[in-house]
Amino acid sequence: MRVPFEDLRAELERVLAAVGFATDRAAVAARLFAEASLDGVGSHGLNRFPRFIRQVRAGIVDPAAKPALVESCRAWERWDGRRGAGNLNAWTCTDRAIALARLHAVGCVGLANTNHWMRGGAYGWQAASAGCALLAWTNTMPNMAPWGAREPRLGNNPLVVAVPRGAAPVVIDMAMSQFSYGRLEGLSGAGLPTPVPGGWDERGQLTTDPTAILRSGRVLPTGYWKGSALALVLDLLAMTVSGGRATREIPPDPERETGLSQVFLAIDVGRSAGSADLADRVTAVIDDLLATPPVDAGAPVRYPGEQVLRTRHENLECGVPVDEAIWREVCAL
Amino acid sequence: MRVPFEDLRAELERVLAAVGFATDRAAVAARLFAEASLDGVGSHGLNRFPRFIRQVRAGIVDPAAKPALVESCRAWERWDGRRGAGNLNAWTCTDRAIALARLHAVGCVGLANTNHWMRGGAYGWQAASAGCALLAWTNTMPNMAPWGAREPRLGNNPLVVAVPRGAAPVVIDMAMSQFSYGRLEGLSGAGLPTPVPGGWDERGQLTTDPTAILRSGRVLPTGYWKGSALALVLDLLAMTVSGGRATREIPPDPERETGLSQVFLAIDVGRSAGSADLADRVTAVIDDLLATPPVDAGAPVRYPGEQVLRTRHENLECGVPVDEAIWREVCAL
Repeated sequence: MRVPFEDLRAELERVLAAVGFATDRAAVAARLFAEASLDGVGSHGLNRFPRFIRQVRAGIVDPAAKPALVESCRAWERWDGRRGAGNLNAWTCTDRAIALARLHAVGCVGLANTNHWMRGGAYGWQAASAGCALLAWTNTMPNMAPWGAREPRLGNNPLVVAVPRGAAPVVIDMAMSQFSYGRLEGLSGAGLPTPVPGGWDERGQLTTDPTAILRSGRVLPTGYWKGSALALVLDLLAMTVSGGRATREIPPDPERETGLSQVFLAIDVGRSAGSADLADRVTAVIDDLLATPPVDAGAPVRYPGEQVLRTRHENLECGVPVDEAIWREVCAL
Repeated sequence: MRVPFEDLRAELERVLAAVGFATDRAAVAARLFAEASLDGVGSHGLNRFPRFIRQVRAGIVDPAAKPALVESCRAWERWDGRRGAGNLNAWTCTDRAIALARLHAVGCVGLANTNHWMRGGAYGWQAASAGCALLAWTNTMPNMAPWGAREPRLGNNPLVVAVPRGAAPVVIDMAMSQFSYGRLEGLSGAGLPTPVPGGWDERGQLTTDPTAILRSGRVLPTGYWKGSALALVLDLLAMTVSGGRATREIPPDPERETGLSQVFLAIDVGRSAGSADLADRVTAVIDDLLATPPVDAGAPVRYPGEQVLRTRHENLECGVPVDEAIWREVCAL
């Protein structure tokens, strides 16, 4: 089923206003949720919306809380998310990082006490559309075992990196687990294996069986020991830069996960005199990449961000694909 | 064979002075090479030294070239490495990033026209010992195929992240390929498989046979498509921030690799009023990690940087293990 983007956005806005978001904030949050689905990331768009509303009703997310500046130190600011909506907090702090980068060339914002930022890539697109490069990451509740251990003590701490290039930036948005829990659930439901090993089964064997991985709760870190190490330092930096909580201090329950720490690091790369041909130079690298002969002639090499633009265009034309049950559930909220 | 650290350092200094390095610069470069071996990273210490000297003699590395400031824009500087020694250039630019972070809380240095930085982790330890967090990365010559392709058009672009914690910081230093070429050569020579699949053989099958991977030249990106995407954005950012070359513009020959681009991003995390208990909070996370019950009782969970300290201590006591043939080769230079 497909729903026109504007209908989707307006419906989400209606529900957000109904649960206590002020008009202007409901509009931004609804746009962010709807754009996630528009861009093909429904797992952090419409599909995540019912849980978000449950969290508002349960008092995990405070719809009235706006982020507050805690400490300002030249190009570095610390903000308190006050347990408000994670996407509104992240949106605001990305804007602050951009503003700091305009002043100092580089801007760094640490955000404590926030909630799940939903689709992290959104903040990469936001910075890139302002001509800034962005490095941003979040910690999460414990959901991944450190390398060599069985018990989840690390988060899968997604990392976003964006490089501006006019209307077609390069944006990555990657968790430190090889597959997200959402993806594993989708494959498990469809009876499909993971394309590469995605975790361990209950006997401790690496497997491509998503159901077995969900049962053991042991997802594979991206690049084995490397993703485990990277998840750890991202957590430490998020805690350090924001002054907020580390993964170990976050409730290990998807419905009650709150108090996250995040970092937004923007660089105003366009301001250098030597940056006049920046977009052309990025395009030359991308063109070279796209021209690499593929292993499979039917699957040309892609760059990160390419599929998003294609999906966005198609969904604006034809409507955003939605899960009918979830759409009905949201319309009834 | 073990050589006392000071003998190793002095011998390298002698050779560097002989090939044209000024006294003070020979001392720093020798220390960096010797410390890599001291810390257990001989692949970028003594073992790499003969190739470095060949590159000096071939005119790839200019022993007299000091890095020069090209452009200064508040917290962001661009430097020209002038094809000088990669470790001296990176050392200088890490110092600049720290100095900028002292002024602006965050400091970002882009370094163009440089050479291989040897052991990247060194700059993480350097920043951490100054109380700064560091994110730093370099591009390399094309040595890794993009996801879905056979031809190497990406670098394996190592990333360094450091979190300060007194004398025991947390430091990662990871290439975007699952295994370095040095590691594959070592395993191949020893007739050992890679512990997890490390690349493709010439028939396009994922394999743990290092000899087959070296023959095909197709190393596996860290985390499959994820390492491929991350290598691309690190290359684009290195080019963008430094104004220097992208991987595609770097000669694809380990003996002639030059003109690299690097980024050094320091955050003076200790300056916040809220950072008084920073080391304790980092230690609490590390202690929690180390206390995770391991899969194999004989292999406790480790944090990145832990083994370095242990190796350094042992090698300072007992001498630095060296490959006897390489040590003799260097003594005869």
